Amino acid sequence: MSPSESVQALVLHGAKDLRVETRPEPTPRKGEVQIAIKATGLCGSDLHYYQHGRNGSFVIQAPLVLGHEASGVVTAVPDTQNGATTGAGPSAGLKVGDRVALEVGIPCRSCSLCTTGRYNLCPQMSFRSSAKTFPHADGTLQTVISHPANMCHELPEHVTFEQGALVEPLAVSLHGINRSQSAGSSAGVPLVGSTALVLGAGAVGMLTAAALAVAGVSKIVIADIDAPRLKIAAGLASGKYKLKTFLLPRKAPAPTIEETLAGAQELATEVCKSADLQSGFDRVFECTGVQSCVQLGIFAATAGGKLVLVGMGTPTQTLPLGAAALREVDIIGVFRYANCYPAAIALFASGQLDGVVEDLVTHRVALADGERAFRLAANQPKDGEDEGRVPVKVVITS
Amino acid sequence: MSPSESVQALVLHGAKDLRVETRPEPTPRKGEVQIAIKATGLCGSDLHYYQHGRNGSFVIQAPLVLGHEASGVVTAVPDTQNGATTGAGPSAGLKVGDRVALEVGIPCRSCSLCTTGRYNLCPQMSFRSSAKTFPHADGTLQTVISHPANMCHELPEHVTFEQGALVEPLAVSLHGINRSQSAGSSAGVPLVGSTALVLGAGAVGMLTAAALAVAGVSKIVIADIDAPRLKIAAGLASGKYKLKTFLLPRKAPAPTIEETLAGAQELATEVCKSADLQSGFDRVFECTGVQSCVQLGIFAATAGGKLVLVGMGTPTQTLPLGAAALREVDIIGVFRYANCYPAAIALFASGQLDGVVEDLVTHRVALADGERAFRLAANQPKDGEDEGRVPVKVVITS
Amino acid sequence: MSPSESVQALVLHGAKDLRVETRPEPTPRKGEVQIAIKATGLCGSDLHYYQHGRNGSFVIQAPLVLGHEASGVVTAVPDTQNGATTGAGPSAGLKVGDRVALEVGIPCRSCSLCTTGRYNLCPQMSFRSSAKTFPHADGTLQTVISHPANMCHELPEHVTFEQGALVEPLAVSLHGINRSQSAGSSAGVPLVGSTALVLGAGAVGMLTAAALAVAGVSKIVIADIDAPRLKIAAGLASGKYKLKTFLLPRKAPAPTIEETLAGAQELATEVCKSADLQSGFDRVFECTGVQSCVQLGIFAATAGGKLVLVGMGTPTQTLPLGAAALREVDIIGVFRYANCYPAAIALFASGQLDGVVEDLVTHRVALADGERAFRLAANQPKDGEDEGRVPVKVVITS
Amino acid sequence: MSPSESVQALVLHGAKDLRVETRPEPTPRKGEVQIAIKATGLCGSDLHYYQHGRNGSFVIQAPLVLGHEASGVVTAVPDTQNGATTGAGPSAGLKVGDRVALEVGIPCRSCSLCTTGRYNLCPQMSFRSSAKTFPHADGTLQTVISHPANMCHELPEHVTFEQGALVEPLAVSLHGINRSQSAGSSAGVPLVGSTALVLGAGAVGMLTAAALAVAGVSKIVIADIDAPRLKIAAGLASGKYKLKTFLLPRKAPAPTIEETLAGAQELATEVCKSADLQSGFDRVFECTGVQSCVQLGIFAATAGGKLVLVGMGTPTQTLPLGAAALREVDIIGVFRYANCYPAAIALFASGQLDGVVEDLVTHRVALADGERAFRLAANQPKDGEDEGRVPVKVVITS
Repeated sequence: MSPSESVQALVLHGAKDLRVETRPEPTPRKGEVQIAIKATGLCGSDLHYYQHGRNGSFVIQAPLVLGHEASGVVTAVPDTQNGATTGAGPSAGLKVGDRVALEVGIPCRSCSLCTTGRYNLCPQMSFRSSAKTFPHADGTLQTVISHPANMCHELPEHVTFEQGALVEPLAVSLHGINRSQSAGSSAGVPLVGSTALVLGAGAVGMLTAAALAVAGVSKIVIADIDAPRLKIAAGLASGKYKLKTFLLPRKAPAPTIEETLAGAQELATEVCKSADLQSGFDRVFECTGVQSCVQLGIFAATAGGKLVLVGMGTPTQTLPLGAAALREVDIIGVFRYANCYPAAIALFASGQLDGVVEDLVTHRVALADGERAFRLAANQPKDGEDEGRVPVKVVITS
Repeated sequence: MSPSESVQALVLHGAKDLRVETRPEPTPRKGEVQIAIKATGLCGSDLHYYQHGRNGSFVIQAPLVLGHEASGVVTAVPDTQNGATTGAGPSAGLKVGDRVALEVGIPCRSCSLCTTGRYNLCPQMSFRSSAKTFPHADGTLQTVISHPANMCHELPEHVTFEQGALVEPLAVSLHGINRSQSAGSSAGVPLVGSTALVLGAGAVGMLTAAALAVAGVSKIVIADIDAPRLKIAAGLASGKYKLKTFLLPRKAPAPTIEETLAGAQELATEVCKSADLQSGFDRVFECTGVQSCVQLGIFAATAGGKLVLVGMGTPTQTLPLGAAALREVDIIGVFRYANCYPAAIALFASGQLDGVVEDLVTHRVALADGERAFRLAANQPKDGEDEGRVPVKVVITS
Repeated sequence: MSPSESVQALVLHGAKDLRVETRPEPTPRKGEVQIAIKATGLCGSDLHYYQHGRNGSFVIQAPLVLGHEASGVVTAVPDTQNGATTGAGPSAGLKVGDRVALEVGIPCRSCSLCTTGRYNLCPQMSFRSSAKTFPHADGTLQTVISHPANMCHELPEHVTFEQGALVEPLAVSLHGINRSQSAGSSAGVPLVGSTALVLGAGAVGMLTAAALAVAGVSKIVIADIDAPRLKIAAGLASGKYKLKTFLLPRKAPAPTIEETLAGAQELATEVCKSADLQSGFDRVFECTGVQSCVQLGIFAATAGGKLVLVGMGTPTQTLPLGAAALREVDIIGVFRYANCYPAAIALFASGQLDGVVEDLVTHRVALADGERAFRLAANQPKDGEDEGRVPVKVVITS
Repeated sequence: MSPSESVQALVLHGAKDLRVETRPEPTPRKGEVQIAIKATGLCGSDLHYYQHGRNGSFVIQAPLVLGHEASGVVTAVPDTQNGATTGAGPSAGLKVGDRVALEVGIPCRSCSLCTTGRYNLCPQMSFRSSAKTFPHADGTLQTVISHPANMCHELPEHVTFEQGALVEPLAVSLHGINRSQSAGSSAGVPLVGSTALVLGAGAVGMLTAAALAVAGVSKIVIADIDAPRLKIAAGLASGKYKLKTFLLPRKAPAPTIEETLAGAQELATEVCKSADLQSGFDRVFECTGVQSCVQLGIFAATAGGKLVLVGMGTPTQTLPLGAAALREVDIIGVFRYANCYPAAIALFASGQLDGVVEDLVTHRVALADGERAFRLAANQPKDGEDEGRVPVKVVITS
């Protein structure tokens, strides 16, 4: 392999058509640094592209490198002063050898959403591994990439590359928590000493629950239909967060919407009762996107509470809207994150989340063997590949 | 009529069974004052009770006096010091002859919703004219009532009784506007200089539009399917609010939900275009409760905007939830109001709303002739009763 | 002692004139319960009254019972249904034998400050142990009192009476933290993952630091001029909060205000540096009230940060106002608390603050020996009375 | 004059040393457009530089062009697609002939203050006409400049260049109003229907008062020591904002700080009384920077209210801090503005501020005669130069 073809990339050419390819080493442009990617976590959207060649309405129109939960080490810094990046923001002073978490969405920084602090909603956002824009911006399942320095957040020494990769989904959780803190000009119930329900015990659900615990929420219930995942949640970080779990029944939808909603309301009462609550949770974080969970969430929130839609889900849903509106339960969407990486890294650096990533990362796979990672994450392993563990977060290393 | 049977009340005994009855004069208890009611506006919920004997799930279980948008004059003050009420709050210093707007929902003042400023959500709320609690609390369609002094808000001299009656629906509008001012921990777009869409040109829609204009919103579109109502909106207060109007098409629902939503999205684009907006309204105030309008509202809000559900509507709705969540358009419910009477009265007192009530109150009817008022408000007048005017707000006087 | 003279009270008749007296048992009025007080913490204002017969401008005009950080057990419930209190709010269902923390300030519940959730600012507030209003409302340094049921917050079984007494100062801390969460219409930096400086390692300072840790703040420095107190802070709850400490120099004021402020700015830089911060703390909680600390706090806050004035201090201060205003460091006052008891109790109940109270309560004294408690709290013990421990919080038991 | 020396600039070489010089025409770089400046308003900081060669601690170290309240017309657009600027934000689609208001502070857009929407606090901000950074960034008192396209806000057709120039001080007012809308996690009193006091009837004070009126504040008092300015305020926009005025007494400071503060408190009571307020203003906007006004402002704010420091003033002040903190009157600084230009322009475009600029701009002077403008603005005119009018805002045209 010539030095100019020294980069390995895991490229998706179509549904279930993943190929390891070599590519020339990228030359960082002005404002960029070159990074050797060390770890990338797989996310639900990666799996959708892998399995269907599309994610919702976004269809891949050209070969696409997936991956956007990533960390790495800086290998080249073109614009330097005394060997470090100049400029402002997270990138200031970045130098070769620094370890970083990558924020992979590049906003325009000029539109009113960017200048008011909501850059996640920037209509010109270019986000790695997404087929929304064309040409597509390749993701981090490569050995080396170039990336804007001011989107590379330095990792303190004792934060691991795996933690660095999970900064991305943790940022989603933190953004959801931030957005839940006030709404509709009411001050809202402070997080400290409050109650929360997390629907869905996947990686984002568990990170959300852990982050809520770190944020001082006193009573947290995490609910799922999958008992093994709830077991992991209960033991998260050796159980130090005291998460309560609730096993949701798997049941067929009722014949009428009225019966379905009556069932959801009943179930909500049970969940509240399991936590000794009379009047519902101050906040509900919906991390599944499933309609029946959103319905449950509306009923499980207390009057004046918040329902935060963290999970991307069914685009069109039939909901008990009156039960939300008449009790002023605000329905708050979450799209990725803005300004959440620094806090996420601070939580890993301070030890407040020690043990969490170790429990969440159930499988580690080398880039060269990337397809196996996708099979594991999709819970479709070949014989024995899963090593007997329920997959929560699969990380690809390089 | 003996003095002890001197009160006239308009009592609903069942669907379309309204009777004028005499009742004994109420004796104010500790903390209460006696009030001669001068004006009561009719509201949609009054009409529901009148037409069906119920309002949604609340069925009248005993004869009920309707009416909750009311003003009057103080006729007796039992707990006095130098002839005026003692105590704190709005009631301090109330004396015989004072003119007041009545806030007719009595909260417990002790629960956490009350003590955090959200008393409208108090689970122990007793609200006049509602059949939610039993025994029902009678409404203001009576000539004399007793009411807690601290729920009587004094009207400055030049505020009329009709304005005083409309303080209630204006409070709903203001509460909706207040709730739209921040959400999800983002500061939100300030009202001044912003854009808003109001769906529904009924009394609350028009009051909301007027209040938005007073609050400094620079571009306001009010939309309805009814051209005559839009004409009233356009001319509100001699046109000083420069409200733009948009006539919504009356159309049958499309055969599939996908087509329905595609139609809603297209219509939203048209509404935005009519106001020269590229990316949607900062705030949408939905004042109809109709599903198609809520769908339209989601699409018509800009990324990071708010959809405020002011109108009570169909309890279960099928919505393009993804289009809200992924653009962080928060869906914010409004249930009545809390702490909004003082501001509403201040707006009338300062002249900021001069001319609005005159345009909104299309019909005035004496209490003794109360059933006619209900027919007018329901837009089911007998021959000529409507005097050729589209009903917006019907006021019963006494 | 006759049953009607069965209550012991510690009564202040003037500066340093504390007497144990017997009083008749109080009969609870409507809405009240009778409580046997078990523990009362002494606070700075109690000490001021004891030492000077006044607290700032409030002079005792009649014998006054001090104490307002209190817990106890319910001994009589007059208004009962099935043996428990009726009504709403914290008091609902209270019965004999229940253990409670007392919120001792009784607001009017009707003024606009009360109805908007800021009852701590109610101008008609009657606060036990304060000489602000006359007749004075006696404090909790009595064996039995009657108190409004809806101001008695039930303590879960495993929350101790001592923790119950410290709910009050913890509520002050939580109120300060709540008030720091947004200001000036900017969303503000979320607490989770942020940085904070606490000035003053007294009881409120240490509770504030612990509460900040529980709320997810990642880097907390607590500063004081007293090394032994800092040692307690560092070891709080076996060091689990990882509080960093900074020993402030005791120094004479500089000859000019310019030099004083230059010194404060220099010291601020040192404090920031000790925490590896380039640009200051996101939040500064000033818990001393001393002018030099407020000056330091302004310089130690980052641009866009908050300075929260938790400690009541010198009423008139000379401050580097430009250094605050031009960097939009908001100066936020804290007066007691509103709506903070439930969260404070939840934190004790959940174990999030385990170990804190044990470290803070350095001395326990029986009511009958109350004057000793005041000597200890004032750090003016007679020989050996202090048992060799720096006083932080002194609790009087009964 | 050769085309390359075609620009006229008003250059400050030292205190009172202003020279009209010719300069080469600036070539717009990537992302910039070239603008012919049409109007620049003079501001207090311009006057400080002119009179003293410095503004506070910022001393001019090289000749400096002043001016930062500016509008103009686009004369060249280098990066075009079909003749208009590409890119996002305010600049999108800008083309030759477009009329714009210039936002003259260029932030880094990458630091945490920029990405969270508080770019006004960016430590790397380069602000035209300020000597804070070196080399200084020249101001707008030139006939032609190049400026980043995304900092040029397009003016609708019927907004005048003078209004365009006053967008800058109006943005300061709006930023102050925005920052006053919530603080300390309390929702705060909504603007609509509230009360406000404005201290100082200069250009920013009057714009603040007008903007408060537009924002729905029902009762506004503007106070000053200068009767002629108050007369202008009272008649602003033909009196349509119904601003009340209060003439502050000019008086020597009292011999002691105690007496000074007692006087301030008494005066505050008078101001409140003049507006028929029992308990103070919901918001106080201090637009003078003078210590006695800040003291007055603290006392004039209601409990739970806000004191907004709009005016840059004496850097070190002695204040009744206890009177603010114990009543939770938050002291909120304002440094320029962020994200306020679009709303300011919308207010001019909608006609909500019609008549205001005409009243505020008391003098217009051509660039070539620039020194006269400074004499007028400093209220030090030569004989007759002031044309008999009190100067409020002096505009330099080109």
